[in-house]
Amino acid sequence: MTEVPLEILLVEDNMNDAELSLYALKKFKIANSIYHARDGAEALEYLFGDGGHGLIPRLILLDLKLPKIDGLEVLRKLKSDPVTQAVPVVVLTSSREERDIVESYHLGVNSYIVKPIDFEQFTNAVRNVGLYWLLLNQSPA
Amino acid sequence: MTEVPLEILLVEDNMNDAELSLYALKKFKIANSIYHARDGAEALEYLFGDGGHGLIPRLILLDLKLPKIDGLEVLRKLKSDPVTQAVPVVVLTSSREERDIVESYHLGVNSYIVKPIDFEQFTNAVRNVGLYWLLLNQSPA
Repeated sequence: MTEVPLEILLVEDNMNDAELSLYALKKFKIANSIYHARDGAEALEYLFGDGGHGLIPRLILLDLKLPKIDGLEVLRKLKSDPVTQAVPVVVLTSSREERDIVESYHLGVNSYIVKPIDFEQFTNAVRNVGLYWLLLNQSPA
Repeated sequence: MTEVPLEILLVEDNMNDAELSLYALKKFKIANSIYHARDGAEALEYLFGDGGHGLIPRLILLDLKLPKIDGLEVLRKLKSDPVTQAVPVVVLTSSREERDIVESYHLGVNSYIVKPIDFEQFTNAVRNVGLYWLLLNQSPA
C-alpha cells in the first residue's frame, strides 16, 4: 500500500464553510486527499507535531479567525519554517479588513480570497482556487 | 482627465510571448491598462526610477531569463521594498528548473507558472492567471 500524497490542508473552524469547501473540491474532482484541521493548533500539530502526519500538502487553505492559534500566527510559522515556506498558502476568510489583508501579505501569503456569501459563488471560488493552485501553479518538488 | 490605474506590468523580453500575453489579456477583456517592460532594468525603472511612472500595478507578470537585470533580481527587489512587497508577482517562464522554482519561492513569489508551449494552452494560462489575480484575489488597497 503506497501513501497517497496530501493535496490540501484545509484549516477552518466554521463547519458550514468547511463542508462547502470539501463539497466543492470533491464535486469538481480537484482533490481527493484533503485533511481538515479545525483550528490553528491542530494545523500546526498536523504539520510539525511529534504525533503529526508529517505530510506536507501541495496547498494550504487557511481561515484567519481561528480558535487556539490564530490564522495569522499559523501563516507566520508556515512562512518562516524552511519545510513549509514554499507551500502555497491561500487565506480564505470572511474578513475584508485592510489590516488583515496587509498583514497577510506582509507575512508572505501567496493569495488572499474573501469568501463569497452566496452558496454558488462560494463553491465556484473554491473550485477556481483549487484549479489554479493544483493544476496551473508550479511548486517545488 | 483622471489617471487610469495600472492593472498589469508585464516583464518579458521575448516579443512573441509578450504579444501572445497581451493578445490573451485583451481578447478575454481581463485588463486594458498594461505596461510592457522589455527587460529587468526597464521594469525597475518603471516602478522605482526618477523618470518612472510611479504607478504601482495590481499584478506583475515576470519572466525569469531577462537581459540587463535578471527576473530573480527583479523579484528580490520587489519583495524587499515595502512599496511593492504586497503586489502579487507571478513568474511566467519557460524554465522548469527546480533551482529557479525553489529560489522564486524563497524570494517570496506569489505564484510560478510554466509557459505552455501550445498556443491555445498558453493563451488559456494567461487568461486564467489574469482572471484569478485581478478578479478573485484580494490585494491591499
